[in-house]
Amino acid sequence: MNYNDFFEDVPAESVLFIDNSEKNMDLYYLTRFFAPDPFILIITPKESTIIISDLEYERAKKEALVDNVIRIKELLNCDIDFSADVPGSIRAVTSYLQNKNIFSVRVSSNFPVRYADLLRDNRFDVVYTKTPIVTQRSVKSSDEISAVETAVHNTEIVLDEAIDLIKKSKILAGVLYLNDSPLTSEKIKNFMVNRLIDRGYLALHTIVACGAQTCDPHNQGSGYLFADQPIIIDLFPRSMDNFYFADMTRTVLKGKPSDNLLKMYNAVRDAQKQAVSKIADAVMIRKVHQACLDVFEQQGFKTGLTDGVMQGFIHSTGHGVGLDIHEEPKIYQIDEPLKTGNVITVEPGLYYKNDGGVRIEDIVVVEQTGCRNLNKLEKILVI
Amino acid sequence: MNYNDFFEDVPAESVLFIDNSEKNMDLYYLTRFFAPDPFILIITPKESTIIISDLEYERAKKEALVDNVIRIKELLNCDIDFSADVPGSIRAVTSYLQNKNIFSVRVSSNFPVRYADLLRDNRFDVVYTKTPIVTQRSVKSSDEISAVETAVHNTEIVLDEAIDLIKKSKILAGVLYLNDSPLTSEKIKNFMVNRLIDRGYLALHTIVACGAQTCDPHNQGSGYLFADQPIIIDLFPRSMDNFYFADMTRTVLKGKPSDNLLKMYNAVRDAQKQAVSKIADAVMIRKVHQACLDVFEQQGFKTGLTDGVMQGFIHSTGHGVGLDIHEEPKIYQIDEPLKTGNVITVEPGLYYKNDGGVRIEDIVVVEQTGCRNLNKLEKILVI
Repeated sequence: MNYNDFFEDVPAESVLFIDNSEKNMDLYYLTRFFAPDPFILIITPKESTIIISDLEYERAKKEALVDNVIRIKELLNCDIDFSADVPGSIRAVTSYLQNKNIFSVRVSSNFPVRYADLLRDNRFDVVYTKTPIVTQRSVKSSDEISAVETAVHNTEIVLDEAIDLIKKSKILAGVLYLNDSPLTSEKIKNFMVNRLIDRGYLALHTIVACGAQTCDPHNQGSGYLFADQPIIIDLFPRSMDNFYFADMTRTVLKGKPSDNLLKMYNAVRDAQKQAVSKIADAVMIRKVHQACLDVFEQQGFKTGLTDGVMQGFIHSTGHGVGLDIHEEPKIYQIDEPLKTGNVITVEPGLYYKNDGGVRIEDIVVVEQTGCRNLNKLEKILVI
Repeated sequence: MNYNDFFEDVPAESVLFIDNSEKNMDLYYLTRFFAPDPFILIITPKESTIIISDLEYERAKKEALVDNVIRIKELLNCDIDFSADVPGSIRAVTSYLQNKNIFSVRVSSNFPVRYADLLRDNRFDVVYTKTPIVTQRSVKSSDEISAVETAVHNTEIVLDEAIDLIKKSKILAGVLYLNDSPLTSEKIKNFMVNRLIDRGYLALHTIVACGAQTCDPHNQGSGYLFADQPIIIDLFPRSMDNFYFADMTRTVLKGKPSDNLLKMYNAVRDAQKQAVSKIADAVMIRKVHQACLDVFEQQGFKTGLTDGVMQGFIHSTGHGVGLDIHEEPKIYQIDEPLKTGNVITVEPGLYYKNDGGVRIEDIVVVEQTGCRNLNKLEKILVI
């Protein structure tokens, strides 16, 4: 592993992680070793080393992409419970680094304060960057892009099947029915989650929101699905094999939409098209977000506090997707350029208390002169 | 919310969290507000307050069990992206606390170092405990116990169905077959995950390991299931409704076990029985773990490095279960007393390179004079 490939900005003699790689995707990215319990990763300019408990030693030796794997017992003469024994972990780090005459460590800005303070007590410099520690992660390799693309492909197949269920439903007193029983948010969610499991993907916190629920972008939805009302389906399945995410949203409606909702839908679709058309290497991220704002303004959709509730385009345009569902780069008013290999969502939305919500989301890969949309599923409101 | 109910040890005028409550279960426990994006929680002796973005404001007002919900815009005159804008978050905290003349904050020991340093730059005392910040979490309320009990109940039904599939399989050239196709680890996992989804539970990282795979307690297993070899099934489904976990393990075998494996199985079952019999309020945790060690020693099962691999009883006896799968109290050599209301796993295991692994795991609730085992599923090796 080449130290300089991964880290920028702050000079330090070594990089240190003490965490589990189930939650900390920087650690997983660097080691490709998935472990639910904490372990230590130290990267010096010369070598990368994992320090780990006996329980995980064999697996780490087999799976982790590092130069050395050391039992913590070799450093401390005893095994420790990493999650409980903070001083023990720091004793191991200290022993390893002092032995190499290294006295400054670079950590992530969310490195636990207690670890940091103990290292400082031991006269180490603890430095961190403002940006994510592994800046490289926002620029995806072709393998990573292909992992996301496969995830998107599987997600589209299942979302298409779910939309088909809604399409086939019958309307009875304003409620959607399938096979003589009411169609609910839960049924559509369970259907998609099960189908995705069979394909090797895990979809958590899936949104199937209808009617008033759609006004809140984070409302996961529940209960009956109604005719003539928007249904937002937003799902972000993760591969259980390689841990990469997809993320996509469609808004559909069975029956007849209100005039306002139809206009909102067209505006969101236009905004998305405009935003996507701006995306290319070196383009300022602000311009992509601004493209959405411009379309909404031109078409008369206001954003702000109305009746005590935020309404309009109340979130950002998108975010990077990879091993984390939300990662760099975030797509809003920031003056950073896009880079070839960024994999980002483009997901404008409009939310009004009286009309409901609309959101459309695709994933695109930033390329030299434009971008490649990984999504193919059609965008049609009335089904 | 009564401040003193939740926090002990370190005096500070306020308690501070800046995190999302999808990953940080202390934050979810205190607010019962589930949010995937970070927000601020400040608890002073007088009141508890959430500071949050516009996007989540309405939902927080409805759902969060706190005294006040404040838009970050009210403090800073602008909305911020909490996950990107660390200084912005700290400006909001500073503004809120200075206004109340509070200059010391208690944080979790894994509070991000960059937040801590910025607060110190603003002349705040930042203190943290060595124990988890919300010590109360290890003692479950009756509602929490009932959530875990329901999770265990659903898990047992599904595990029983899975074991039944293995039971019904036919042996062909040493491989298990069901309906004329080989039975695999993946098939059993998918079967259980799907059944659990239908029951409202999500099972991640489920282990269905067979043969040599069982020697490594963290090997999730893959490929064919074989006759005459141990199959360890370990699953820890989480309610998608209330987020509480179950956690249970059975080891089964189709065909004929080796004499050694049979002895190992009986030893593990005895160890578990002995450990459970020791559990009661005020009993030292060390005694429960020691009960397992004693049985293994009496029956001649050694633990240690053999042929360069750790073999024997190579993990702890158990751990607390609740909103996190691994929480307090951990059950190993520690001199802390069990408390009525602790909900813990008891999961001794033996692992030998030549014979394979055996693990049996139940969840028990610590009571005044003993404990209540939430599991009812039988423990039988040969099915």
